[in-house]
Amino acid sequence: MKFSINQKELYKALNIVRRAVAKNQTLPILTGIFLSLDNNILTLKSTDLELGIKYDLKVEGQVNGSIVLPATQFLNIIRELPNQKIEIDLNKDKWQLEIKCLNSLFKINGFDPDEFPNLPKVEDSANFSLPAKKFKEMIKKVRISTSKDETQPALTGAFFEVETEKVKMVSTNTYRLSYIEAPLKTSVAEKIAVILPGSTLQELNNLLEADESVEIEVDNNYARFTFAGIEVISRLIEGKFPNYELVIPDESNSKFSADLSQLHGAVKRASLIAKLDANIITLLAEDGLMEINSAEGSSGYAHEELKIEIEGPKQKINIDAGYFIDVLKVLDAEEINIEMIGPLNPLVVKSQSEAGDKFIYLIMPVRSQA
Amino acid sequence: MKFSINQKELYKALNIVRRAVAKNQTLPILTGIFLSLDNNILTLKSTDLELGIKYDLKVEGQVNGSIVLPATQFLNIIRELPNQKIEIDLNKDKWQLEIKCLNSLFKINGFDPDEFPNLPKVEDSANFSLPAKKFKEMIKKVRISTSKDETQPALTGAFFEVETEKVKMVSTNTYRLSYIEAPLKTSVAEKIAVILPGSTLQELNNLLEADESVEIEVDNNYARFTFAGIEVISRLIEGKFPNYELVIPDESNSKFSADLSQLHGAVKRASLIAKLDANIITLLAEDGLMEINSAEGSSGYAHEELKIEIEGPKQKINIDAGYFIDVLKVLDAEEINIEMIGPLNPLVVKSQSEAGDKFIYLIMPVRSQA
Repeated sequence: MKFSINQKELYKALNIVRRAVAKNQTLPILTGIFLSLDNNILTLKSTDLELGIKYDLKVEGQVNGSIVLPATQFLNIIRELPNQKIEIDLNKDKWQLEIKCLNSLFKINGFDPDEFPNLPKVEDSANFSLPAKKFKEMIKKVRISTSKDETQPALTGAFFEVETEKVKMVSTNTYRLSYIEAPLKTSVAEKIAVILPGSTLQELNNLLEADESVEIEVDNNYARFTFAGIEVISRLIEGKFPNYELVIPDESNSKFSADLSQLHGAVKRASLIAKLDANIITLLAEDGLMEINSAEGSSGYAHEELKIEIEGPKQKINIDAGYFIDVLKVLDAEEINIEMIGPLNPLVVKSQSEAGDKFIYLIMPVRSQA
Repeated sequence: MKFSINQKELYKALNIVRRAVAKNQTLPILTGIFLSLDNNILTLKSTDLELGIKYDLKVEGQVNGSIVLPATQFLNIIRELPNQKIEIDLNKDKWQLEIKCLNSLFKINGFDPDEFPNLPKVEDSANFSLPAKKFKEMIKKVRISTSKDETQPALTGAFFEVETEKVKMVSTNTYRLSYIEAPLKTSVAEKIAVILPGSTLQELNNLLEADESVEIEVDNNYARFTFAGIEVISRLIEGKFPNYELVIPDESNSKFSADLSQLHGAVKRASLIAKLDANIITLLAEDGLMEINSAEGSSGYAHEELKIEIEGPKQKINIDAGYFIDVLKVLDAEEINIEMIGPLNPLVVKSQSEAGDKFIYLIMPVRSQA
């Protein structure tokens, strides 16, 4: 393998594929990045066996070939090189890569590329496409509610359902729930209903940029996302996602709206006291006014007030301040709309765009402490 | 105690005094910030018994008084409040402080201020002043060489010597040494020769801003630094600082100069391989060319070249790349001047300003590994 490429382009490419490099050392070759040159196309690949990323870029190729290089070391070296032409030359007998740039010369020992696993194929798949911006927006709102509890694998991911003209994503850790639904321009031949791992959502959120379209293919075991020359292949989570529809209330007793940034500030401040204990705050919504209170025995007490518009009777509820802050951070509006039934029913944040996107966020109440 | 103050001003003041708040909980009151109002002057104080900081600021005072508040909590609350007028009111029976700002109300439990230790007095002291910019520059260059080894306390600080018309600072961990000397406009009555703790240098570096003059007073046990309304009082380190003068070579066999940023880049890159082992790089300086090499058995090899100007015979030396990078980071020039005797003598970085400031940085060689 022999080729040359500009430093900046190679660094960008490595920063994309590094996201699927294995973090643990169980299989050393997976802590590496696979490089393969075919004429003027350099293919970079990485995988931790859950997630795989493949990225192609144009280089000035001279001799075809392939190698696997230790990711951290390779990335650090390319980062520190000046923004100049880099010449790469493989010594295949030693699996050693020579990197030349101006007056710098590195020789890095790699691995035999034949030992690197192939990325899984997505076969007989259902496929459709989404604007990257919308998909990223959906991911942001849904990934906050995924669970960290590995004993219930289905909850560590997001349910992903595609029907004719509609795409839905749902996640829950049983104490809160994100539901998002968006109209689909392309239609799918067969209904898709799978669970995407939380870590995949995280990496898609990092990689997706606004001005693209994402091609999505799904089979029984894997999902593939293709955008901007990047291919992300993710294993699906097996198991059954809970019946979330039963949890979302159809009706409410009181609806109110508040200024989003005012509410965000007030909840963050009240949480400064609340988090010294279990991070529980009390909301009291009545005509024209919302009070937010928190107290921690030895430290003190916080009280916040803000103006709201309310329809229906006054409401009081205890909720986790962290769960509330999470949704306040991802909402992109001036106002927030909240619905409530009573102190033992979830608080529901709702938003709907003109384009027909629907977002519902549920926070389960905490029993009164006093 | 009752007063009002703008959020931004109070937050700035808290950010200054927080730097001496005790990090461990052995004496809970030291994790707090002492507040005391005397008419329109609010005095803030903190100390971990090694370092103390005092800061005065003007407020709209109503009722005098004092309290000690938990630092982290108080700082977090003030940070999250809007940039508006904050009203503070003390309930002395409960040692509870009420903080009001727009629609936010906090009640924070504090400590009895009588239990807060007084900051030490600096008595019968020698005193002089330095421009803050110069002092900060000196601190930056000297703090890199302080030792982390608590078994030799004198080396964890910097020797601080003031004679007629000259101020010197020296630090060493025995493997490297910083020596800095600057002319003094004011003269001192008596010679000062003390050891300032490394942590004090760190905090002075954080607090000093360019456009000030620093008043420095030193007695047998403490040093006080006064600038921009801030008073920093530091305990001195007891013990004898090693006789550094013997270590600094009077002469050299070879002198060479190189472009600072090119050298910095080359050493950083060579260190990417070196740090996989003991971070040792080999410098080879000969006519017109410096080579920097590093190797780590299983990983690979780095080779860097750059143009230098050399006077004298060629030189080869093994040194710690980290020690070299530390000095390359703090030098503020286009060129670096280096002097050497041989592979068993220290590498010496020298710089001298037109104003008469002198900086010498020594790195002890490492025996050849091969």
